[in-house]
Amino acid sequence: METTTPNWLKKRADLSPERTALIFNNQSWTFSELFREAIKVAEKIVNVVPRDCRRAAILMNNTPETVWVIHGLQQLGLETVFLNCRLTANELLFQIKDSETELIIHDGSLMDTVGELKNTLNIPIISFKNLVGGHSSHTSLKKEFTLNDVCSIMYTSGTTGKPKGVLQTYGNHWWSATGSVLNMGLQENDSWLCTVPIFHISGLSILLRSVIYGIPVILMEKFNEKTVNRLLSSGQVTIMSAVTAMISRMLSEQGNKPYHPAFRCLLAGGGPIPKPLLLLCKERKIPVFQTYGMTETSSQIVTLSPEDSLRKIGSAGKPLFPSQLKIMVGEKEAKPLEEGDIYVKGPNVTPGYLNRDDANHASFKDGWFSTGDLGFKDEEGFVYILDRRSDLIISGGENIYPAEIEEVLLGHEDVAEAGVTGIPDEKWGHVPYGFIVSAKKLSEEEILAFCRERLASYKVPKKIIQVEQLPRNGANKLLRRLLSELTADED
Amino acid sequence: METTTPNWLKKRADLSPERTALIFNNQSWTFSELFREAIKVAEKIVNVVPRDCRRAAILMNNTPETVWVIHGLQQLGLETVFLNCRLTANELLFQIKDSETELIIHDGSLMDTVGELKNTLNIPIISFKNLVGGHSSHTSLKKEFTLNDVCSIMYTSGTTGKPKGVLQTYGNHWWSATGSVLNMGLQENDSWLCTVPIFHISGLSILLRSVIYGIPVILMEKFNEKTVNRLLSSGQVTIMSAVTAMISRMLSEQGNKPYHPAFRCLLAGGGPIPKPLLLLCKERKIPVFQTYGMTETSSQIVTLSPEDSLRKIGSAGKPLFPSQLKIMVGEKEAKPLEEGDIYVKGPNVTPGYLNRDDANHASFKDGWFSTGDLGFKDEEGFVYILDRRSDLIISGGENIYPAEIEEVLLGHEDVAEAGVTGIPDEKWGHVPYGFIVSAKKLSEEEILAFCRERLASYKVPKKIIQVEQLPRNGANKLLRRLLSELTADED
Repeated sequence: METTTPNWLKKRADLSPERTALIFNNQSWTFSELFREAIKVAEKIVNVVPRDCRRAAILMNNTPETVWVIHGLQQLGLETVFLNCRLTANELLFQIKDSETELIIHDGSLMDTVGELKNTLNIPIISFKNLVGGHSSHTSLKKEFTLNDVCSIMYTSGTTGKPKGVLQTYGNHWWSATGSVLNMGLQENDSWLCTVPIFHISGLSILLRSVIYGIPVILMEKFNEKTVNRLLSSGQVTIMSAVTAMISRMLSEQGNKPYHPAFRCLLAGGGPIPKPLLLLCKERKIPVFQTYGMTETSSQIVTLSPEDSLRKIGSAGKPLFPSQLKIMVGEKEAKPLEEGDIYVKGPNVTPGYLNRDDANHASFKDGWFSTGDLGFKDEEGFVYILDRRSDLIISGGENIYPAEIEEVLLGHEDVAEAGVTGIPDEKWGHVPYGFIVSAKKLSEEEILAFCRERLASYKVPKKIIQVEQLPRNGANKLLRRLLSELTADED
Repeated sequence: METTTPNWLKKRADLSPERTALIFNNQSWTFSELFREAIKVAEKIVNVVPRDCRRAAILMNNTPETVWVIHGLQQLGLETVFLNCRLTANELLFQIKDSETELIIHDGSLMDTVGELKNTLNIPIISFKNLVGGHSSHTSLKKEFTLNDVCSIMYTSGTTGKPKGVLQTYGNHWWSATGSVLNMGLQENDSWLCTVPIFHISGLSILLRSVIYGIPVILMEKFNEKTVNRLLSSGQVTIMSAVTAMISRMLSEQGNKPYHPAFRCLLAGGGPIPKPLLLLCKERKIPVFQTYGMTETSSQIVTLSPEDSLRKIGSAGKPLFPSQLKIMVGEKEAKPLEEGDIYVKGPNVTPGYLNRDDANHASFKDGWFSTGDLGFKDEEGFVYILDRRSDLIISGGENIYPAEIEEVLLGHEDVAEAGVTGIPDEKWGHVPYGFIVSAKKLSEEEILAFCRERLASYKVPKKIIQVEQLPRNGANKLLRRLLSELTADED
């Protein structure tokens, strides 16, 4: 039998109507008010949604309206495609078509991009403020959520360069939320600061946990170290999710002043934290929980608790209670300290990619998901991540896939070969550099302009370096990790 | 796809090996030690378990050995029948045969009963201390728990008088545990005092939550108000499960002395708490959470939090986050304040009774379980229980079903008709009284002796009253609730 739960927001509004659900700038909403807003939005969406529509997309930044729309779509049982607001129209078009999205709701902040989408697409594309109420008596709202149903779809790239839609079911989010609560506990005064984008799993998971746990989200439109530090010093925040770049900026702005003792958990994801930063956190008594996770695991799946954080420096910790992680060397499970491929399993792991039989076939084996990342476990079972999959570049918390940029570079008529790799950067962790081979001397500026038209700005290479040839192995496969050596001549 | 999780105890021992798992008298065990004991027991059980055995029973009181055996059986993937140590050999025999149990492990404390079982049964019946180690290299231990698999079976009676085996899956226990944690939170210093029998769901659920949450159980062989009060005053206990009779005895022994502030949650089940007792708890700042639940819901499904406990006096609260409850009047859902039949739904609700198609057919409708209890919801959705199912008598936390006692009474050659009902009792809440009709004058002592041979002592009527006729309705159905009026002549 299918496992069902009550509709989450409805249930939470019933159980704790007067608790605070959402805080944004100087405004706040209780769960009962949030539920009312979600219903209002749902009734408006009904007026514009095509008949038998299954999937809607949102192109929205971190605002209360976005929260309402997400919950509004859930009230109607629509699957939601989370579009990254930083992408170009071309990148978005691929995801919208690939996901067979039939309705787009945006927040009015990206009018140029939306204009381009409207020129190409023949589906309703509506801004939040143009949603209007109407005859809503027939709106049928979900009483229950079936855990196997798809809740959200988020795109991620990989070795092929073609982004894939990761299916996240209600069950995936539920198990991620309960796995996390069993790890870090749940207190009456808990509240979660969300400065990461809601269109990423790091942000969405906070919104859903808020409803499941019955705790407030303090939402920020954009990360700002000054505001964050003020909040963490006030006692209003007990939990925060952050990436390395944010933590650096926070610490440098805050100096030696301590945070409020109520602040009990800084979940640090998006790549390992450098050791000096960890030591600084320890010195300042900041409770860092290092984590490892990805869109496919519906947020963190491995977490290191503060008591182990220096003893096991560099480790992401152990898999959360409902989840498993194994290291494989070929067909055999690796011995302690032996490096290998990271596989994960658990009810928080995606059932697969949307309409990608090939990728699903390649990524799943006996219920285990192949992350493509490399790592090892130590004798006590602590997990260490060595290399993110497919030479993934993590830049300020955003994932950048070299293959995607290489595909764009190769699209230029004069580029014969292209390779992209991440180069360490003080502010962003890493930034992408592009290496090209061409018969004639090309202008860096021209290539960059070509990229800017086709790629989100954070993906555009910081530098284009023209070289004689790219490092390849015997099978002529590009060796991206050797690319960085080619920068030597440049510096 | 079937949902699986890692083997719970193995996982917990991996995540928090050094945390305390179990405290009993002056001894304690960490999760790593508990896991080791469970493995040792599993390896011993392998030596006595029949080939292809699916189901084993335990006849054991609250001791550490019982905890090891429960976990040992889970390591082997055996379904566990939880036998009530207070039952007679006859009552046990029915459950053992009905459940097709192939192995019984007992704790040596009930040698007479065990002797009778051995005379009748042709299966291994072994005391814990006679379990011995052996060649265990081939013991195959469960790596994962499949949530749809049956974990435990507990017998409960009902209108028919024939006890039914309630199937409790790993998933039922999991969802019960997570539903509860979302209601009452989870803190680093949490520990749960278990003075209720492990062979009831109230006790077993504490053991399983300890493993899922990673918190210690303080186990007591028997409830004793003095020891309990000492523990609650020491700061060692944060959560306790109790029934009304226990709470009365605790308060009377403790007097005005306050409990330690760390004691944050007294889960009160087994029938509603009388208002004067609730007021006394409030006066003494005891954090009572009233609950409603049953074996079929794998522990509480409805809970009233302290902040509502006096505003909503007499209410059991609202259904936990993953669960639902509705009141039906015939085929229609009741209006607020309208009385009706209580139905529940949720992933913590049993998939059904073992081998009882008729009872399952009668009890389940569209995924909803008919509890047989009567109640209503108020305008805010708080649930009030009016009458426990089938005139259930709750006596000191034990469920007593009149039909079962009536069946025994009718088994006496001179008893023509029999009726049983619960009569209020200061110590036990209620106790059963038997009413009989016979052509000749019968001796009360003889009838009681007849009952003692066939019924657990707590089920034996406190009084047998011979009457001219029993109250019946037009359809000749016994009206048990009118029986109490027949006691008037006696007093």
